[in-house]
Amino acid sequence: MRPSGRAPHEMRAVSLERGVTKHAEGSCLVKFGDTHVLCTASLEERVPPFLKGKGAGWVTAEYGMLPRSTHERMRREAAQGKQSGRTQEIQRLIGRSLRSVVDMKLLGERQISIDCDVLQADGGTRTASITGAWVALYDCIEWMKARNMLTVSPIKDHVAAISCGIYRGVPVADLDYPEDSEAETDANFVMTGKGGICEIQGTAEAEPFSQEELMSLLGLARTSIADLVELQKKAVGL
Amino acid sequence: MRPSGRAPHEMRAVSLERGVTKHAEGSCLVKFGDTHVLCTASLEERVPPFLKGKGAGWVTAEYGMLPRSTHERMRREAAQGKQSGRTQEIQRLIGRSLRSVVDMKLLGERQISIDCDVLQADGGTRTASITGAWVALYDCIEWMKARNMLTVSPIKDHVAAISCGIYRGVPVADLDYPEDSEAETDANFVMTGKGGICEIQGTAEAEPFSQEELMSLLGLARTSIADLVELQKKAVGL
Amino acid sequence: MRPSGRAPHEMRAVSLERGVTKHAEGSCLVKFGDTHVLCTASLEERVPPFLKGKGAGWVTAEYGMLPRSTHERMRREAAQGKQSGRTQEIQRLIGRSLRSVVDMKLLGERQISIDCDVLQADGGTRTASITGAWVALYDCIEWMKARNMLTVSPIKDHVAAISCGIYRGVPVADLDYPEDSEAETDANFVMTGKGGICEIQGTAEAEPFSQEELMSLLGLARTSIADLVELQKKAVGL
Amino acid sequence: MRPSGRAPHEMRAVSLERGVTKHAEGSCLVKFGDTHVLCTASLEERVPPFLKGKGAGWVTAEYGMLPRSTHERMRREAAQGKQSGRTQEIQRLIGRSLRSVVDMKLLGERQISIDCDVLQADGGTRTASITGAWVALYDCIEWMKARNMLTVSPIKDHVAAISCGIYRGVPVADLDYPEDSEAETDANFVMTGKGGICEIQGTAEAEPFSQEELMSLLGLARTSIADLVELQKKAVGL
Amino acid sequence: MRPSGRAPHEMRAVSLERGVTKHAEGSCLVKFGDTHVLCTASLEERVPPFLKGKGAGWVTAEYGMLPRSTHERMRREAAQGKQSGRTQEIQRLIGRSLRSVVDMKLLGERQISIDCDVLQADGGTRTASITGAWVALYDCIEWMKARNMLTVSPIKDHVAAISCGIYRGVPVADLDYPEDSEAETDANFVMTGKGGICEIQGTAEAEPFSQEELMSLLGLARTSIADLVELQKKAVGL
Amino acid sequence: MRPSGRAPHEMRAVSLERGVTKHAEGSCLVKFGDTHVLCTASLEERVPPFLKGKGAGWVTAEYGMLPRSTHERMRREAAQGKQSGRTQEIQRLIGRSLRSVVDMKLLGERQISIDCDVLQADGGTRTASITGAWVALYDCIEWMKARNMLTVSPIKDHVAAISCGIYRGVPVADLDYPEDSEAETDANFVMTGKGGICEIQGTAEAEPFSQEELMSLLGLARTSIADLVELQKKAVGL
Repeated sequence: MRPSGRAPHEMRAVSLERGVTKHAEGSCLVKFGDTHVLCTASLEERVPPFLKGKGAGWVTAEYGMLPRSTHERMRREAAQGKQSGRTQEIQRLIGRSLRSVVDMKLLGERQISIDCDVLQADGGTRTASITGAWVALYDCIEWMKARNMLTVSPIKDHVAAISCGIYRGVPVADLDYPEDSEAETDANFVMTGKGGICEIQGTAEAEPFSQEELMSLLGLARTSIADLVELQKKAVGL
Repeated sequence: MRPSGRAPHEMRAVSLERGVTKHAEGSCLVKFGDTHVLCTASLEERVPPFLKGKGAGWVTAEYGMLPRSTHERMRREAAQGKQSGRTQEIQRLIGRSLRSVVDMKLLGERQISIDCDVLQADGGTRTASITGAWVALYDCIEWMKARNMLTVSPIKDHVAAISCGIYRGVPVADLDYPEDSEAETDANFVMTGKGGICEIQGTAEAEPFSQEELMSLLGLARTSIADLVELQKKAVGL
Repeated sequence: MRPSGRAPHEMRAVSLERGVTKHAEGSCLVKFGDTHVLCTASLEERVPPFLKGKGAGWVTAEYGMLPRSTHERMRREAAQGKQSGRTQEIQRLIGRSLRSVVDMKLLGERQISIDCDVLQADGGTRTASITGAWVALYDCIEWMKARNMLTVSPIKDHVAAISCGIYRGVPVADLDYPEDSEAETDANFVMTGKGGICEIQGTAEAEPFSQEELMSLLGLARTSIADLVELQKKAVGL
Repeated sequence: MRPSGRAPHEMRAVSLERGVTKHAEGSCLVKFGDTHVLCTASLEERVPPFLKGKGAGWVTAEYGMLPRSTHERMRREAAQGKQSGRTQEIQRLIGRSLRSVVDMKLLGERQISIDCDVLQADGGTRTASITGAWVALYDCIEWMKARNMLTVSPIKDHVAAISCGIYRGVPVADLDYPEDSEAETDANFVMTGKGGICEIQGTAEAEPFSQEELMSLLGLARTSIADLVELQKKAVGL
Repeated sequence: MRPSGRAPHEMRAVSLERGVTKHAEGSCLVKFGDTHVLCTASLEERVPPFLKGKGAGWVTAEYGMLPRSTHERMRREAAQGKQSGRTQEIQRLIGRSLRSVVDMKLLGERQISIDCDVLQADGGTRTASITGAWVALYDCIEWMKARNMLTVSPIKDHVAAISCGIYRGVPVADLDYPEDSEAETDANFVMTGKGGICEIQGTAEAEPFSQEELMSLLGLARTSIADLVELQKKAVGL
Repeated sequence: MRPSGRAPHEMRAVSLERGVTKHAEGSCLVKFGDTHVLCTASLEERVPPFLKGKGAGWVTAEYGMLPRSTHERMRREAAQGKQSGRTQEIQRLIGRSLRSVVDMKLLGERQISIDCDVLQADGGTRTASITGAWVALYDCIEWMKARNMLTVSPIKDHVAAISCGIYRGVPVADLDYPEDSEAETDANFVMTGKGGICEIQGTAEAEPFSQEELMSLLGLARTSIADLVELQKKAVGL
């Protein structure tokens, strides 16, 4: 029995609210149950140095948690003077995931910066971030199209993510914090709308896991991500 | 004529929403028009080293802006590896303002950390932060009273804040961003429910200002802060 | 009775010694009693990025305290790897104060950097810094005029500063350290030669203060700053 | 055809040289072809704060690359003042991998720090590091047993790692740098001697990958890791 | 011919002014011509961790240059967030030099921190610092004796320093900046009152130097340092 | 009697192994007994800003110690976020030493960066670094000549280094760690093939040393360095 009473394959209530900030070219407040992440997409007419003059654009991401988004207050990274290894790992993952569904030549020499800021955390912040970031990115592209900066969208597909894990011996989807902190195995899956795998990160917390367990987690992820892609479609009106 | 069409003494629509995060002992989402700040109060059973063993508590504050809370994306302070001078100045102001209405002996050897994170900025983020922080602090104290950690509230009075300025020659209350960036003089006032002044910070942006101008700004502030205190009372049910 | 035996309106002995360093284009050793600050003005033929090509100059300031300028040795900020919030707040104030009396178009695309280094501290370092910095700035401009880099001075007026406070219930001018550490209210005033207010920063240390108290402090400040401006005039031979 | 002429399943020549430094309690110079990593295990009679008094030990890891271990010289992280996100990600992975095969209660309140320093890089530095680190850790435990600090080894199993990828459409094992920089998909696998999976990290560099591709990479990894475990056994004389 | 017209063995005018700051237990403003350094000695009733409980004291030093002590303004190290290699090298040298003439057992478990802050630089700041620091240290010890914290002085001897160099082929003493920036060889000597060598640092700037040149520089240094020791004696009234 | 049983003038076994890394333009693994340093020379087609457009090149050096190169594990400088004063002092010394034998005009507008990374430390790491760095630099120049980037070598002479010291009253050459940590005086000498002195750094650890002692150390150094130069010649085939 899961602490939340959910069935093993059951995700938390997911919502994707667009247009939540006045300034950003695209934005989305994503909620996976009590995990709430504010995602914004910011268009900048510049590219990182390694891309200058190459006719291609870039998508990058930064991630942060508000100090009291967590059960105990965390120290503010800006006050500590550095981002933790975990923060850097997550923002690199978000950036890679989004880049895997964007045609950089079509984007042109521009950078879109995605900021994912966790307002409230209850497990699965990185997967919620990726799922919401896609919506913010989509809206940023629409904003550009509306201004004739692009005629063809450089977005090739949806991308969404879910965490699955073995909790008390049972493979379950969309771990919340009580599950996450106890799970024997924890895996994050990033997949496209067509079902291709962009990223898979599985970690044995206590005992190593087997290929069969990996397969069952992948199966749960596939179904969940298909549902998340449907929610993305609804959110942006596709 | 103000860009927003408001009368000189007219504040923006202000709202104070309590209980907006699941984990914090007190929280408030404060909105002054399009300026939105999430304030949380976190109770910690420790005090800074200089207070150890002195039987008194402490209230401190940290402030941050989400990178795309502003019109142009700002660099993330955590990624830059330091807080700007402006950030530090603001968080010191918030902390001082709240401490001026708390009896530290009554609080006991505990620290309450207030985090003010700007989700969307349109001028006046520091004064909105102070106004909302009081509500978060109040709820944190109520949380402690409900758990018999305190019998008497250490909160001595309300504290709230407003920015006023000389805009195109006219003293106006509650500057929004278009006014703030053009105002000849910009002053922030922090006052208590009884009308005492906790803090006044007036800056001439272009020409020096006169004592009369200062007095007219102080008059506007007094009225506005009285209104803000009424809103705080309503918000917490006093 | 003040610890120093001064009358409430009485400033400490103030001296402004020019030309105290060999290298700087302008310099001033300012003393407010036992508070001693070395101010230098350094001309640089460049402007900050946001001013490039705009035909206007810039005046900026940095502030520091020698580690043993204080009663107890402080940690050296260079060794700690960062400037404190207080340091940044003060240097921002000094810079704003000076800029308020300089015509940046007349200065041309150049930067003048003011360094205010506290050799000995006994309260009022920021206000002494501003008062001395004006003399260093003036001499830097004279240095430029002597080399035909400027024909008209971009300095529009004097600027000087004083701290006043409520000490044991009495408004007093020019707080020294024993007063400053005990004052109920502490306010810094920055004013021009013509009596315009550039900056006012008032803080209630214990109890909030009233409008009447603010007015009495402002009155003390006005008289003191008029005296300081006279001393500046004498120092530079006006 | 692979640039090295290897068959798809063929690893590079792997060697594990023990006892390569005079000071460390355990050490191993691991070579996967031209990738050379010096691994040391350092015993310290202390644990991180979160483990104090809990009767359990800790194993942690740090990773670094010599500036000219790479084709182009990289900036030295110590000179830059921070470790990159990539470095932190890798050292977190190495630490987790080793902890998954150590019984922390049996280790007792001590910390073993593994340092993996890349002397020469040609792809697969993180997987070589994990494979060599196990040998250094094993020797550190033997050193402790020889001094009667432990009677039973806390090492529960072997752990080794390999990178596999889809290179020009073909699943191949043990990517070298020319393959790694061109591979469509790149996955790192960490497995135990018994074949349990500790960690799997798969990333689509260009196109998303399929479940079938993941399975074929996992199959290659399983065979390679079994070979690496045999080499570990030979190296330590089991 | 030296730019200053001095004879090869001739030092600049040297002065050692004691008691120049109100707060420090010992202080000295040392001038070697236009090189001016403010040295303070601060007594602290603590020792570094490696000396705790060992019954011995410590003497340490920090060094800094005011940003406009130099011909061109230097960046402020506190603003840059780190001390340069040169700064660290110099402060380590000052600390070692002073420790070589202090009996740490006699000092007892206390630390004396010497701060050497360059107000104006014209070559030889590190040697002036050492020479002045001894006076500040001496006065700090006298301050302690006057308070019965010590009965016997832990200072075993004088220590002073001079820079000598080969300038246009001629060995000269006490290089000023114009000489220093052109000298073929530059050497710093730290010696005791009895003529023992504490430290010698010789550097060939252009061509390597010979043993004979080293000897002639050492001879110049010996004479100069004997003169400096006499000036120290006069300064402190020995 | 020396701990190692060596005669006073006797160096440890020294070896200089070239071509030890695949990527660097020049490399050398230098061993002075149990002190092992990996030196690489990296050619970069750029110069530091102060040399741009001046037609001259630059040689610079960086130094690091692997965390467990020492008896007790040291903290990793990259993890601490800064290089220690000792590290900076040593890398500045290595750079100066090499520059003293290179004709920067002949090198042309290019930079050669020498990295000296200590794999195992047993005293004398800085002098071993300099001695090995010369070989790496030589090979880098040969690499350039082989590619017609240079026709004439900019290397004017050999440069090598040794530490000597007074150990239990006896002047000895090439201190190992047990001697170094106990020596009364410790001096590092850097000399050219022709016997010119590039750098001399002598430090009294306990008692000041005399001119005679300095001379005897210099004599030991001269002989040792002549031997090291012979070993360099053999190593590079001169």
